Amino acid sequence: MTKLKWGMIGGGAGSQIGPAHRLGASLDGLFEFTAGALDHRPEEGVRYGQTFGLGNRAYGSWQEMLSSEKALANPVDLVTIATPNSTHFEITKAFLEGGFHVLCEKPMTMTVEEAEEIVKISDATRKICAVNYGYSGYSLVRHMRAMVTRGDIGKIRLVNAEFAHGHHADAADADNPRVRWRYDPKQAGVSAQFADCGIHALHMASFVTGQVVTKLSADIVSCISVRELEDDAMVNFRMDGGAVGRLWTSSIAIGRQHGLGIQVFGEKGGLRWSQEQPNQLFYMPLGGRMQVIERGEENLSPEADRATRVTIGHSEGMPLAFANIYTDLAEAIRALKGQRDIDPSANLYPRAEDGLRSMAAVFAVAESGKQKGTWVDARPPMFS
Amino acid sequence: MTKLKWGMIGGGAGSQIGPAHRLGASLDGLFEFTAGALDHRPEEGVRYGQTFGLGNRAYGSWQEMLSSEKALANPVDLVTIATPNSTHFEITKAFLEGGFHVLCEKPMTMTVEEAEEIVKISDATRKICAVNYGYSGYSLVRHMRAMVTRGDIGKIRLVNAEFAHGHHADAADADNPRVRWRYDPKQAGVSAQFADCGIHALHMASFVTGQVVTKLSADIVSCISVRELEDDAMVNFRMDGGAVGRLWTSSIAIGRQHGLGIQVFGEKGGLRWSQEQPNQLFYMPLGGRMQVIERGEENLSPEADRATRVTIGHSEGMPLAFANIYTDLAEAIRALKGQRDIDPSANLYPRAEDGLRSMAAVFAVAESGKQKGTWVDARPPMFS
Amino acid sequence: MTKLKWGMIGGGAGSQIGPAHRLGASLDGLFEFTAGALDHRPEEGVRYGQTFGLGNRAYGSWQEMLSSEKALANPVDLVTIATPNSTHFEITKAFLEGGFHVLCEKPMTMTVEEAEEIVKISDATRKICAVNYGYSGYSLVRHMRAMVTRGDIGKIRLVNAEFAHGHHADAADADNPRVRWRYDPKQAGVSAQFADCGIHALHMASFVTGQVVTKLSADIVSCISVRELEDDAMVNFRMDGGAVGRLWTSSIAIGRQHGLGIQVFGEKGGLRWSQEQPNQLFYMPLGGRMQVIERGEENLSPEADRATRVTIGHSEGMPLAFANIYTDLAEAIRALKGQRDIDPSANLYPRAEDGLRSMAAVFAVAESGKQKGTWVDARPPMFS
Amino acid sequence: MTKLKWGMIGGGAGSQIGPAHRLGASLDGLFEFTAGALDHRPEEGVRYGQTFGLGNRAYGSWQEMLSSEKALANPVDLVTIATPNSTHFEITKAFLEGGFHVLCEKPMTMTVEEAEEIVKISDATRKICAVNYGYSGYSLVRHMRAMVTRGDIGKIRLVNAEFAHGHHADAADADNPRVRWRYDPKQAGVSAQFADCGIHALHMASFVTGQVVTKLSADIVSCISVRELEDDAMVNFRMDGGAVGRLWTSSIAIGRQHGLGIQVFGEKGGLRWSQEQPNQLFYMPLGGRMQVIERGEENLSPEADRATRVTIGHSEGMPLAFANIYTDLAEAIRALKGQRDIDPSANLYPRAEDGLRSMAAVFAVAESGKQKGTWVDARPPMFS
Repeated sequence: MTKLKWGMIGGGAGSQIGPAHRLGASLDGLFEFTAGALDHRPEEGVRYGQTFGLGNRAYGSWQEMLSSEKALANPVDLVTIATPNSTHFEITKAFLEGGFHVLCEKPMTMTVEEAEEIVKISDATRKICAVNYGYSGYSLVRHMRAMVTRGDIGKIRLVNAEFAHGHHADAADADNPRVRWRYDPKQAGVSAQFADCGIHALHMASFVTGQVVTKLSADIVSCISVRELEDDAMVNFRMDGGAVGRLWTSSIAIGRQHGLGIQVFGEKGGLRWSQEQPNQLFYMPLGGRMQVIERGEENLSPEADRATRVTIGHSEGMPLAFANIYTDLAEAIRALKGQRDIDPSANLYPRAEDGLRSMAAVFAVAESGKQKGTWVDARPPMFS
Repeated sequence: MTKLKWGMIGGGAGSQIGPAHRLGASLDGLFEFTAGALDHRPEEGVRYGQTFGLGNRAYGSWQEMLSSEKALANPVDLVTIATPNSTHFEITKAFLEGGFHVLCEKPMTMTVEEAEEIVKISDATRKICAVNYGYSGYSLVRHMRAMVTRGDIGKIRLVNAEFAHGHHADAADADNPRVRWRYDPKQAGVSAQFADCGIHALHMASFVTGQVVTKLSADIVSCISVRELEDDAMVNFRMDGGAVGRLWTSSIAIGRQHGLGIQVFGEKGGLRWSQEQPNQLFYMPLGGRMQVIERGEENLSPEADRATRVTIGHSEGMPLAFANIYTDLAEAIRALKGQRDIDPSANLYPRAEDGLRSMAAVFAVAESGKQKGTWVDARPPMFS
Repeated sequence: MTKLKWGMIGGGAGSQIGPAHRLGASLDGLFEFTAGALDHRPEEGVRYGQTFGLGNRAYGSWQEMLSSEKALANPVDLVTIATPNSTHFEITKAFLEGGFHVLCEKPMTMTVEEAEEIVKISDATRKICAVNYGYSGYSLVRHMRAMVTRGDIGKIRLVNAEFAHGHHADAADADNPRVRWRYDPKQAGVSAQFADCGIHALHMASFVTGQVVTKLSADIVSCISVRELEDDAMVNFRMDGGAVGRLWTSSIAIGRQHGLGIQVFGEKGGLRWSQEQPNQLFYMPLGGRMQVIERGEENLSPEADRATRVTIGHSEGMPLAFANIYTDLAEAIRALKGQRDIDPSANLYPRAEDGLRSMAAVFAVAESGKQKGTWVDARPPMFS
Repeated sequence: MTKLKWGMIGGGAGSQIGPAHRLGASLDGLFEFTAGALDHRPEEGVRYGQTFGLGNRAYGSWQEMLSSEKALANPVDLVTIATPNSTHFEITKAFLEGGFHVLCEKPMTMTVEEAEEIVKISDATRKICAVNYGYSGYSLVRHMRAMVTRGDIGKIRLVNAEFAHGHHADAADADNPRVRWRYDPKQAGVSAQFADCGIHALHMASFVTGQVVTKLSADIVSCISVRELEDDAMVNFRMDGGAVGRLWTSSIAIGRQHGLGIQVFGEKGGLRWSQEQPNQLFYMPLGGRMQVIERGEENLSPEADRATRVTIGHSEGMPLAFANIYTDLAEAIRALKGQRDIDPSANLYPRAEDGLRSMAAVFAVAESGKQKGTWVDARPPMFS
């Protein structure tokens, strides 16, 4: 099977997210790194692209890449956008309209209006616009979703999600430019910790339950008082299938590393999963005993099986979760090329609608936070 | 050293809390079970009391016990009140006014007004009125408090407490009288799960930080819809020393057993403790590594040492936490008798003021919950 | 129900084990501390005994206690012996022959011959001689035994037990008298770490499987070379029901606190338990999933239920395990007094036969250890 | 940087280990899959190779591949051998002698004599012969080694390693050909569970301590009695730097999945790591507290840093450990090509000497096991 051709915008030398995407895209041999505009400095972008063997498809700018690739007989099949947040909208829009499938880093845009526009363009062009809520790629997260879907724990009553870390807890480091921009509304937009981390937990709540957030109430605080934007937030929410939600996110939680986790409680059972111990899923049926579901167990769901590479007892970590987003995209792209149906167990990548709903939630959190926790509509206008 | 004389109201045959108090009171040999009115049925109370060798100090009613003990040269030194919630106020008041020290099960009263009255009576009579927030008796909880007090983790920014269980998650069991009364305002008052469990977590937040709650906002829900009172609540709060608080409590969290836990984050470190693993305390200094503090370690705080009975690596469980409340009370009673100062490391039992602040918080949660999360004052009038 | 009368030899001021026994004996109100010879210095023994209100039953020596109590109409019902190891045999023998029930601290004797003699005396006098392998009192250890007995995991293939700690790992502290005597054959006998700790793990292996050790092979080492006796031992063994055993014990395992644990593997399932997390038992049926059995669960075994005091989710620790040995003894003593059968779920206290088999194992380990791991018979002569 | 050219023998369609190697080799983009003889059936091998785009470098047999590649101007830089165990020696030898670097699956050979021959050939040809003890690729295992090397825990006293699983515990499945061959000496050689799994733990003990095994004593059993070879083994050993070793391995340990773990105890501290929780390393300094070292922490060792791809709190799993073996090999091959020194923090791949020492240990275990645990020399003749 020929590899799909893959291109990247951003992710230059020294970037953290660039290598993670290259790892995820290449890991299963489904994509070949073919083209890229890896730096905002044209010469550096070309130079760095050539270290990956991109040859004359190492471009000096995304505009150049767009026009050149469009002109080729065999242009790239998928473009990953890993540029600064404020540029996501413009580049995503341009590539979708140029006829390319896109995987955009989160956030997809900086406003709800822009996000709605992307959704519409993606629909109109029938081009994939995926958004990288990559933690949904873990096989046991997908298995949670499958268990909920098939009714193993009954109607969902409550979701409790969190994403806590302590990496911005040092007040003496608050002015460090590497940290400061995240709490500056001019650079980060209307929200800091919720938009950066909490949104992953909120996406996961939707992903696992199959429900979308309808309204929410937020309590946001800046524990380090020089920050304009929040470093800690508690969000209560409601979902369209009746589930109640609680979500805590923090960047001052000293002792937590990358504490994304979720608990889901239904009428017939409960489930618990944590990003830092991703190979076990804790399941308790009503009236029963806690059971440990192991990644790689026999007879899990098709969704879990498809997202599993090594046998039980061997941990799979975050890079493989990430790679699962790419395998889904490969499947989706091939399906579109072949005009065939996508394997439903592979049709799980987060998409423009998720990016839009996330953006609406970010703005709702900011608004409710300003208004002392007033409940606000969290749905984007086009879905309300 | 002669044992103190201990009496009990309530806690008859079949009661859960009765044996726990008898265990706690007797465990260290400081109290001798001397008198009791153990059942609301006089004959049964006398009969049951005699099984403990109470002889003619096994009474048919608390009124009889009060008048008889007052007339004795050596009446009981401490009376534990473990009757139904709605009777706590009347009995506590009567015994305090009768000149007795009291340990009252929580809730101390059914209203804030009653609670203020108890505080005033306790102050006026100089009689101890303790309230049984027994989880504060764990030695490592006391060590957390000591670490916070001595500044180990700096100024406290945030407390995240929870108390989740799944024991009322079965909708088919909701009409079971054993469960139903808890969600019926006629019997339970203004709050169910928060008043029953959440309040332990809130007390612990205050106990550990040394700060009191000033205001709060609550989102309360009845996941099992036939319930009038909440089976799940999320409470955001603020404390008088500047700490922000989050508190989740649930009785529908299938898979959680008795999930009381607390995380405290300060400017210089974080701490985490869970009731189900009470012999370890997780401590992370800012910029350092997670450390595991073991119960029974050498050179912990005087507060922890005093509350420790067996050597490191041997677990101590809930009954010993409970017993620590009694050892504090023995110390306090002896100090009062001897007109000497109490050992400060033993002066940690929860008292009427805690009972009052808890009652104010319960009413504030109920009020805020009704008003969609509006922030309300959580302080009792006499302290606001 | 009148309390049984309890007496103690040893356990004077400053002793660690003395308070543990007093806690265990008194915790359930079944025994009343009535008599004692608490110190080898007569005056101090009397003085200390009087602080517990023993009055004229605070004796200056065990000989005095023996003769005096024998002369009483209501002598003590049970005598706990917590004196230095080398005196256990003489005192135990004397009290059994004097007509008293005894609970002896381990080791019961210093030689196999003495231990056989105790067994014979206990049989002949029909007096209880219990030996304090107190960890077998944990309710979930008893539940493991019940599960094995009723066949839940099928025929037992293998037991892997361990008891590792690091409290003697500091070479600089090896000459500290508090530590040194344990590794000195003149004071400690033929074995140090195995006799002190490993034997608890070996007893547990027998207790849980219901099988006795028949032969063994030991590799013993002194990691701190100045020690004559071992500070680390690995023992392979065979049991009379066909089970294979592995047992590791160490006192130089820095980072382990009191690491007693056991794994049992049968034809139909496996079980795992650890003393430091005693409220959970991990059970995996063949072909199934790991399940977490919680102390206090409904519908466990009668053995577990009887050994449980507080509800699920509330930890019970080592002092309550210890107390379970005493509740068994109270049941056994009452049964003997009343000539009735003992409740089988309470008939679980370790007895002279366990003390004897343990002593035989200790000598077998020492002998095999000297002979480079040659397999040796581990059965006492009277049972071989 | 041009990719190195990589070839593979074995690992055909349906193989488990084949995909793992392809994942590991390609993950960092250092190797390009260029040639292969993937199946013992020539046509199938060619067909399957072409699915990876190998074109006319998809060969029908390893002999064909060897002769063809030798004739090329740019032959493969590294050949991975993942064929049945009994063929490893012949193929490895042929490729080394043909001038190729080799990564051989374990076991490297079926006898010690063959293994010595490989070592000699590798030395003589100056061609790399690596052996895939892949668990040594985990970044925190490498950090353990670095900590030991730099003296953080002092002179090593004791290593306790284990590798327990329960995947062959079902007696009803013992005749399943998929399982049976492993316990049949005609197919598996002199050892089953020790050679298959235990050897990984033994290699890790050497890898981490930097010491080699000198002698050992083994207790081997077939818990499922129809098996000729062992399904459970306990091995005591000694190392050339003075460390004592204990190693348990089992395939009937129901409830264990892939339980490879190691504890190392030195004069100044202890370390513990487990393959199923590979992102944390537990470290306790003598007299201190347990600390949790997180994969991805700042300022770990160069060895750990080099083997780390994603930031702290994001798990890395087994495929990335595996990939670290390949990155080491890429570094080593490039160093040889460039006649420069290898980065010492990358010079950690297991090599022919490890394969030889492992083979000697396997034979020693089998011999000692037959002789009831007699201590035997575990060193290969050429190193004894």
